[in-house]
This record gives sequence, C-alpha cells and structure tokens, in this order.
Amino acid sequence: MRKLVMAEKDSLQLVTHHNHCGIAEALQFFGDRWSLLIIRNVLMGIDRFDALQEDLQISRNILTKRLNALESDGFLLKTPVKEGSKRHRYAPTEKSLALAPVLIAMIEWSQHWGDTSKSWSSVVDAKTGQAVKTKIVNQDGEEVTTSQMKINL
Amino acid sequence: MRKLVMAEKDSLQLVTHHNHCGIAEALQFFGDRWSLLIIRNVLMGIDRFDALQEDLQISRNILTKRLNALESDGFLLKTPVKEGSKRHRYAPTEKSLALAPVLIAMIEWSQHWGDTSKSWSSVVDAKTGQAVKTKIVNQDGEEVTTSQMKINL
Repeated sequence: MRKLVMAEKDSLQLVTHHNHCGIAEALQFFGDRWSLLIIRNVLMGIDRFDALQEDLQISRNILTKRLNALESDGFLLKTPVKEGSKRHRYAPTEKSLALAPVLIAMIEWSQHWGDTSKSWSSVVDAKTGQAVKTKIVNQDGEEVTTSQMKINL
Repeated sequence: MRKLVMAEKDSLQLVTHHNHCGIAEALQFFGDRWSLLIIRNVLMGIDRFDALQEDLQISRNILTKRLNALESDGFLLKTPVKEGSKRHRYAPTEKSLALAPVLIAMIEWSQHWGDTSKSWSSVVDAKTGQAVKTKIVNQDGEEVTTSQMKINL
C-alpha cells in the first residue's frame, strides 16, 4: 500500500449547492454493491440469469430483484435468446453502456490504490493491447487537473 | 428521458477473468450509498461531523460508522482544526482525491441520463467556466471508444 498523504487543500472547489447531484443520482441506481457488477457482467456478455448467478455468487432472490430493478430503470433489456424462444438474455442499453467511463475510472483507481500484491484487472486498447487511461479535458481537449476544476452542485 | 436503445453487441470485450476486479474492489469501499457522498463532501470542504450530518441528512450513528471505516481504509484523515484543538475536521487523502474521475464520470452520466427536467450538477474548468468531459485515451493520447476496448478481468 502507498503511504497516505493528505490531499492539497481546495483540491475541488464547490461553487453552489442547489442543483441535483449527479453522484447521488447515480448512486441511487447502483449504490447497492450488486447493480454495477451486474451491469459490468452484462456489458461483457455474461447475460443469462444462471451465468450471472454463478459468476457473482449471489442469491437467486437478490439477483431477481436487482435484475427487475435494472430492467425497469432502463439499464437492461430482457430479450429472447432467439425469436420465439422462452429463454432470454439481458442486453445492455445505451444508458448502461454510458456507465463505461465510471467502470473504467474504478478499475484505474484500483490499479493505483488497491493492494499492490494483487494482480488487478485492466482496460486496454484492443488494437495495441496497451492500457487506456481516463483523462478529464476541457472543450479544447486540454487536460484539466482536479485543482483546476469547479463543481457546480 | 431518452428513448432506450439497445447497445451494440460486443461493446466491451472480455479477455480473461482471473485478475482481481477493480470495480468489485472499489465497490467494497463505497458500495453502500453513503461513503462516496461523504468523500464528495469532504473533497468539497464539508469536512466537520455536524456539517456532514446536516448536509447528508444521515443518522449520527451511521455517519460515525462510515467515517471510522473511511478513516481506517485510508480515505480520510482526522485532524485537529487547529494545533491542540479538540475539534477536528476530516481531510481527504491522495487515495480519496484519486476518486475524482469516478465522481466526475458519475456527474457526466447523470447529465445525459438523469431526468432531463431537473437541473444537474456539473464540473467545469475553473478558468473558462466551461464543462469538462471524461475522455478515455490510449498511450498516445488518442481517444478510444468503448467498442475499441478490452477488459482484462
């Protein structure tokens, strides 16, 4: 583990506090430990009930509840495996695919801050096999560091 | 709300599945709805117990538990307000500041996918006041789309 250093003061600047917080909004959907892992799996093609249950080692009861909630909240679409089939798979929507930057940022964070004795998952450019990186940029594409940002909450 | 469209197939490609998943790791720390909101507040300078309690409308009991866990997991440092003071504040560490891309990606996601009738929080470049954007880039700084990525889980 790295040594813990206090972050610089004023690293994020709060401007106002009267908008709806997007962090709270996002957590409302997946602030429960399982939902984001289910979305991760469906995005990767682990998209049947039994496969999800086996991979996540989650009770069938909880998995059913979470899948129903994710479906009614528009993150997943339940579709027949083939036309007319009774078996189905869960397909990601554009709304859940749009969570990829959140998932990638989490993977990146764990590579830096997780237990360094473990081998961590990584996201790579399929073409080159090299790791990708999250970058925060302004409208001109220039990188913005956290100390240069303001949050309008 | 936008129309829900099924995401393209193979939008994320799974390669292997024998590393520790950084998403699961990250969720272990803040897959509980409150921890990430506490970190958000401390990053923004809402850093005293009472101010956190008031802002989050959380029971003192739960807040105490979450703060203790975040402190022992190295996300927060409890420091006296002034030298020798009995009153204290919670300061972010580099480990929690490194979560900024996760928080920003969540804010960005909510702007696109949250209820469009609401006014959502945003993150802006302090210099220009314009919104910042999360970009996934390869080693050469070129943007990589989700369909060009592979996850090594």
